[in-house]
Amino acid sequence: MAGGEIGIGRALLPFLDWRVPLHRRPRVRPVSMASDSKSVSVSFERLRAHIAATLGRVGLPEADAARVGELMAQADLQGSDGHGVIRLPQYVKRIRAGGINVRPQVRVVHERAAMAVLDGDNGMGHLVVSRAAELAIAKARDAGVAWVGVRHSNHAGPASLYARMPIEHDMIGLYFAVGNANHLPPWGGVEMLLSTNPIACGIPAGEEPPVVLDMATTVAAYGKVKAKAKAGEMMPPGWMIDREGRPLLDPRRADEGFLLPIGGHKGFGLALVVGLLAGTLQGAAMGRDVIDFNRDHVSTTNTGQAILVIDLRAFGDPAAFKAQVDRLVRDLRDGERMGGVERIWLPGEQSHQRRLRYREQGIPVSAGVVADLAALSAELGLPPLV
Amino acid sequence: MAGGEIGIGRALLPFLDWRVPLHRRPRVRPVSMASDSKSVSVSFERLRAHIAATLGRVGLPEADAARVGELMAQADLQGSDGHGVIRLPQYVKRIRAGGINVRPQVRVVHERAAMAVLDGDNGMGHLVVSRAAELAIAKARDAGVAWVGVRHSNHAGPASLYARMPIEHDMIGLYFAVGNANHLPPWGGVEMLLSTNPIACGIPAGEEPPVVLDMATTVAAYGKVKAKAKAGEMMPPGWMIDREGRPLLDPRRADEGFLLPIGGHKGFGLALVVGLLAGTLQGAAMGRDVIDFNRDHVSTTNTGQAILVIDLRAFGDPAAFKAQVDRLVRDLRDGERMGGVERIWLPGEQSHQRRLRYREQGIPVSAGVVADLAALSAELGLPPLV
Repeated sequence: MAGGEIGIGRALLPFLDWRVPLHRRPRVRPVSMASDSKSVSVSFERLRAHIAATLGRVGLPEADAARVGELMAQADLQGSDGHGVIRLPQYVKRIRAGGINVRPQVRVVHERAAMAVLDGDNGMGHLVVSRAAELAIAKARDAGVAWVGVRHSNHAGPASLYARMPIEHDMIGLYFAVGNANHLPPWGGVEMLLSTNPIACGIPAGEEPPVVLDMATTVAAYGKVKAKAKAGEMMPPGWMIDREGRPLLDPRRADEGFLLPIGGHKGFGLALVVGLLAGTLQGAAMGRDVIDFNRDHVSTTNTGQAILVIDLRAFGDPAAFKAQVDRLVRDLRDGERMGGVERIWLPGEQSHQRRLRYREQGIPVSAGVVADLAALSAELGLPPLV
Repeated sequence: MAGGEIGIGRALLPFLDWRVPLHRRPRVRPVSMASDSKSVSVSFERLRAHIAATLGRVGLPEADAARVGELMAQADLQGSDGHGVIRLPQYVKRIRAGGINVRPQVRVVHERAAMAVLDGDNGMGHLVVSRAAELAIAKARDAGVAWVGVRHSNHAGPASLYARMPIEHDMIGLYFAVGNANHLPPWGGVEMLLSTNPIACGIPAGEEPPVVLDMATTVAAYGKVKAKAKAGEMMPPGWMIDREGRPLLDPRRADEGFLLPIGGHKGFGLALVVGLLAGTLQGAAMGRDVIDFNRDHVSTTNTGQAILVIDLRAFGDPAAFKAQVDRLVRDLRDGERMGGVERIWLPGEQSHQRRLRYREQGIPVSAGVVADLAALSAELGLPPLV
């Protein structure tokens, strides 16, 4: 796949050719380092405590540090390793540069029966967004449905963390976020005015794992590009192209190109709409106003996120709904497969399995991340993770 | 592009190759028959009145027939010609077969401050869904945000018709629907258990046209396949594949294959989530329960649709929001373009321009559709459209 002259259509072949077994297609295989001999296995509790201790050392109150530690470790636990502890050095750098407020006063700026907008006071995104999810859950219990958005928030990890929160309350979560750096031009353009703006949705099931969709509106999320760079691996073709439309495979050259939207113009449209809903509507940054938090560690990002929560009780009997979801999940999973496909996976099923496995066997953390964390711990005078 | 051995990746090349100017890519060019010498130009008013008269003749009350005529003609006016008057013979066939209730009693089955579920009593989808949109708009005015879903509805035309309705009230519309025939297998499977389940979103702007996204979660909507068949044209590669994964180009052979989801597994996940939100949550059909309304004209479809309406006033000053949308739209449209791209189009901009042009010059209706309508009019003892 070397050479700069490959058209993007051809470059996408390994992702789109139905004759290639699904398990051989790069994008279906999650960025997993479980089988990487250079990774280290760490318990959830140890990872959680390490993150909390680190954030406490740079100024977060104990309860807040514990909350962020819990959420970041959950990201790694479900295999969202581009959004978990790998981000800790960056967060610390931003906190120490004054780019994040460690003692934010989160407040309600707009409120109605079925909505609110919170100002996160430039606090850690995990704190601001989990507060929004909790408020939306409380409001949905009365109004049936509730939307809570945030402004002056920050990067909050994987979208599915928040879309999943309503599930245990027999509620559906639908989550939208503005990404923290623009890597996507409009369809046909080369100016990167949009981010990977993800959509996530968590839907309760009965006996089956919940349906949890978490997707960037680009073929790959930028966190996956960073994880590839950290692991010293090349990206599969189809994730990024350069300004001339040629595949860009080296994640260290990510600055020279941009991400591709799913479905071409449709993914551009989705990224735009998600950004308007999660950003502009909440009075948060969108388009030219988005701060690239990989380069700028000081400026307030004014990140916007929003969650819609739907209470199943308002729509009838939650148990009946969940039985329908079970039936549908089984119909889809047990149906006839294309040749070479070993199993049909439902959205969220792989991360569900990882969560169970990593709880028992420990969470794999790559050697590169371990080294970065060791340097950070030494700098802060803390014991290392491992 | 002949031959059955073309891999789907290669087949998608014309859609994905950034070096092909956008205006030459098949999927960007809407299914437009404006330049077709065999099409006839009809005024919006004439088309609206013809549809209303036809539906009145088969039993719809005058006001209901007028409402459906208005909405169906609006579909053609904006260029959604796979969802407008082309469907009239099929609707009439279903009505005469007893598959649609011409005098439905639409009623509220569940209600809270910010939500409702309507039972459409198997009425015309246009009537049921526009009622849902109106109720959601009224509820959002108080609660800030409102979700109204429907069960026992029917095919209602293009999703954007309803997502657009809140715009004139300074509100955002977000619309989800279950398609009326399953053409999509789960990713890796061959059993068609999902439909094209569209997402639409209408967002008010100030001086610019509103941002209106209307996308099937498949590369092509099935209505476009039907329009190709009607026009006697082949489909571009990438819309459908057969059970062996080979491109399927002949729309008359559509029964032998299935549609491709956008972004592979992501589009499958989106179609599933949209179906759960628009169908299962409302107590409407999803998965195996979906009736193929192209083959079965009698069985109740129990179609589900849902709209979320967000009142801009609850989030601050609508004028300020709309000015931000204008700024963003202009930034995106006026940015640097890839070589060969003449213009960057925002979602909904092309249909906005068509609406203005067709109002003035008339709506093009293809010769094939005109012939079908003439036969229908003769059968019903009505004057022909043209």
